[in-house]
Amino acid sequence: MKMIREKVQQAVEILQEKKVDMWLTFVRESSSMPDPALDMVVGQHATWQTAWIICRDGETIAVAGSLDVASIEDNPAYGTVVPYVQGIRDELLGVLRRKNPRRIAINYSTDSVMADGLTHGMYLLLMSMLEGTPYAKRLVSSQDIIAALRGRKTSTEIRHMRKAIRLTLDIYDEVTGFLAPGKTEQDVAQFILKRVREHGVELAWDEDHCPAVFTGPEHAGAHYGPTKRKIEAGHVLNIDFGVKVHGYCSDLQRTWYIRRKGEKKAPKEVQHGFTVIRDSIRRAAEAMHPGVTSWKIDAIARSHITENGYPEYPHALGHQVGRAAHDGGVGLLPRWERYGKLPYGKLEEGGVFTIEPRLPIEGYGVATIEEIVWLTADGARFLSKPQRSLFLV
Amino acid sequence: MKMIREKVQQAVEILQEKKVDMWLTFVRESSSMPDPALDMVVGQHATWQTAWIICRDGETIAVAGSLDVASIEDNPAYGTVVPYVQGIRDELLGVLRRKNPRRIAINYSTDSVMADGLTHGMYLLLMSMLEGTPYAKRLVSSQDIIAALRGRKTSTEIRHMRKAIRLTLDIYDEVTGFLAPGKTEQDVAQFILKRVREHGVELAWDEDHCPAVFTGPEHAGAHYGPTKRKIEAGHVLNIDFGVKVHGYCSDLQRTWYIRRKGEKKAPKEVQHGFTVIRDSIRRAAEAMHPGVTSWKIDAIARSHITENGYPEYPHALGHQVGRAAHDGGVGLLPRWERYGKLPYGKLEEGGVFTIEPRLPIEGYGVATIEEIVWLTADGARFLSKPQRSLFLV
Repeated sequence: MKMIREKVQQAVEILQEKKVDMWLTFVRESSSMPDPALDMVVGQHATWQTAWIICRDGETIAVAGSLDVASIEDNPAYGTVVPYVQGIRDELLGVLRRKNPRRIAINYSTDSVMADGLTHGMYLLLMSMLEGTPYAKRLVSSQDIIAALRGRKTSTEIRHMRKAIRLTLDIYDEVTGFLAPGKTEQDVAQFILKRVREHGVELAWDEDHCPAVFTGPEHAGAHYGPTKRKIEAGHVLNIDFGVKVHGYCSDLQRTWYIRRKGEKKAPKEVQHGFTVIRDSIRRAAEAMHPGVTSWKIDAIARSHITENGYPEYPHALGHQVGRAAHDGGVGLLPRWERYGKLPYGKLEEGGVFTIEPRLPIEGYGVATIEEIVWLTADGARFLSKPQRSLFLV
Repeated sequence: MKMIREKVQQAVEILQEKKVDMWLTFVRESSSMPDPALDMVVGQHATWQTAWIICRDGETIAVAGSLDVASIEDNPAYGTVVPYVQGIRDELLGVLRRKNPRRIAINYSTDSVMADGLTHGMYLLLMSMLEGTPYAKRLVSSQDIIAALRGRKTSTEIRHMRKAIRLTLDIYDEVTGFLAPGKTEQDVAQFILKRVREHGVELAWDEDHCPAVFTGPEHAGAHYGPTKRKIEAGHVLNIDFGVKVHGYCSDLQRTWYIRRKGEKKAPKEVQHGFTVIRDSIRRAAEAMHPGVTSWKIDAIARSHITENGYPEYPHALGHQVGRAAHDGGVGLLPRWERYGKLPYGKLEEGGVFTIEPRLPIEGYGVATIEEIVWLTADGARFLSKPQRSLFLV
C-alpha cells in the first residue's frame, strides 16, 4: 500500500503536467477483468461497478457499491468514499458535478495494453450514464498518463527491480554448472523453478514459458514451453526468464554454448553470431537518450544484424519492464502495423527497457541476449550486468 | 484441454442455435488482460494480437503472431492456424473473406462481465481494420452465446462442481468443532486455509476475503476480510467460502450460533431469523423452472423476508456459478439499475445458481445461508446439502 500511495501521488503530478483534471478507472468484478491500472494506483479489487477517481487537485475518490465500501474505506490511497446501493449513476454524476472536470481521462488505447483496461461494454455503460451531460465530450484516453506513470520509475521501484534482476542473474550463474549433454530443456526449467521457490519469489510471467529454454537448431523459437529435447554437444542454448520481487519484474535472456569433445572454445560462426548480438545491444544502448524516437533505436540494432548477413529478428528490439514483464508504453519498436503509433513516440527519462535482439546460427541454435537498461538524463544505464562473452559448458 | 474441446464443440452447437456464423475473441497480451472467454474455449494465452475464431460450420481458426504460433499449433481445439509477422489485418480479413460470415459475435456486453472481455481499444482497432469492408456492420454481441455456454453445464462440469461443493461442506463440518469463544475471525480463516492447502485445491476467489468470516453484530457485512474480532458467546457467526476443483468453483455460506452459558438452543429471535432465511431459500428454489423470469425469483425471497419484518438484503438473491464464482449471465436479480437488462432474462435449463439471502438479527449478527442449485427440466435440484438448522456451538 505504501507503493500505491507513492504512485497515486505521482499520478497527481502527471495530471497537472498533462493538464487533465480527472482520471477515472471504471471497473466491475475486477478480479475477473483486472484493468492493469488497478495494480498501480488502487491495490484491491471490488465486485460491483466502481469508479476509482484521481483528481488534478489531489483529491482521490471511490464511488462504490454498498458491500464493497467497508474494504475500500480501509484503502489509505482513497480519501473520499461515496457509496451506492441500486446503481452507480447518480453518485458518479454527483461527483462529476462537484468537481466539474474539463478533461476526464479513461483507460482505453489502441496501442498500449496497459492503458486499455476499460472494456467496450463498460465504455458503452459509461456513455449511457453521461448522456445529456457535458462530461461525455470531455473524455480523453489515459494513454499518456499511464505511460508516464508506469514508465517513470521511482527510486523505490528501481530498488525492487534491481533485486529482481540480481536474483535472476544469480540463478543464471548456477544454471551454467547444471547444464550438460543428456539433460532436457524441461530438466533445466525444473532446476530454475526449484531455485525460484527456494527464494520465495514469483515468476515474472506464466509458468508455461517462464523459464523458456531452447537448445540446439530449429526449436520453436520463443513464447514456447520447455520440451523433452535433450541438450547435445554442439548446441547453442538460450534461456528467457524473470522473477517478480515486491511486484516488480525482471526479464533477461542469456546464451550458452555446449562444447564438443576437444573444443576449447565455440566454433567461429557461433562466436561471430554471439558477438554481433552483443554489439548490436551496445550500439542501441549508446544511442538511447531522453527524447530520441523509439523506432530509431530498433533500427540501429536491426541494421547492425542485417549488415552482418543475418536475417532480422521477427519482433521488437525491446519493451518497457516494471510491474508487468511487458509493461507497455513506448518500447524500442519497429514501424510495424501491430505496434500502432508507439514506434513514433519518444523515450522518456526514468524508463526501464529490455534490449533483446536475436539471430539464428545455422546448425547450432539461436543467439540472443536480453539486457535491462534504465534511461537517465545521461543516457542508458545497464541494470543487468551485461553478458560480454558466450557462456561455455 | 479435454474440457476446452468439449466446450468448443458446445459453442458450435450454440452458434447454430443462435444463427451466428462466427464467434471472434480478439485479444493481445492476454495474461495481462484475460478475456474471460479464454478460460472456456481457448485454454492458453498469447502475446501478440490474436483472433480466436469458432465457426458455425465447426471450423476453428487462430490468427496469431509469429512467435505465438508454435504454442498455438499444439492447441488441439484450433484446427487452422494462420500466422502473421508485421500486422494481423491482412490475415484476419483473409479469413473473413473466405468464411464470409453474415453475423459475427464479439465479446462486449453492458450487462455481463463474463461476456465483456473485449477492451474498448481493441474494439476501436477491430473497427479500423474492418473499415470499408462489409463485416463492420455484421458485428453482434456474444452475450447470448457466452451466457448459454457458461450456463448450460455439461455432465463433466457438474461432476467437478459437485466435488468442489462436497469438499467445501466437509470443511464446514470440521469448522463447527473448531469454533469457540476467544478465537478470532482470522483464526477461523487460517483453520480453513490449512484444510484447503492439505486438499491441494485453489480458492474460488481472492484470498483477502476467501474465506470471509463474520462474527457478532455490526461487522462489515460482506466482501471484507476476516479481522481480529473475537468470537463471543451470544454471537451469530457466518462464513462465505468456496474452492475450485478442476477449474470449477463452489460458493457457499453457513451460519452458526455461539451459545451462552446455560443455553440449550439459540434465542427465539436468532432462531426466527435463521428460519426465515432458510424458508426464503426453499420458496425461491421451488419457484425456479426453465423459462421463469429472473427477477420473479428474487422477489419471492425478498418479500418473504420483508413480510417477516426484516429489511431487504442489499444485493441480488443469487448468481450463476461455474468456472468463476460469479459466473455471469442471468442470475436471480432484482430490477435494479446496476443489473441492466439481466433481471428480465429467463432461467435456462442446465444453469447452476447460488441462492443467498441475508438478514440482520439485531444484537446478534447476520443470518445468511448460500446454497447451490442446478436447474433441470423438473426444477431446481440442490447440489449442496441444504442447511436445515442453525449450527450450534
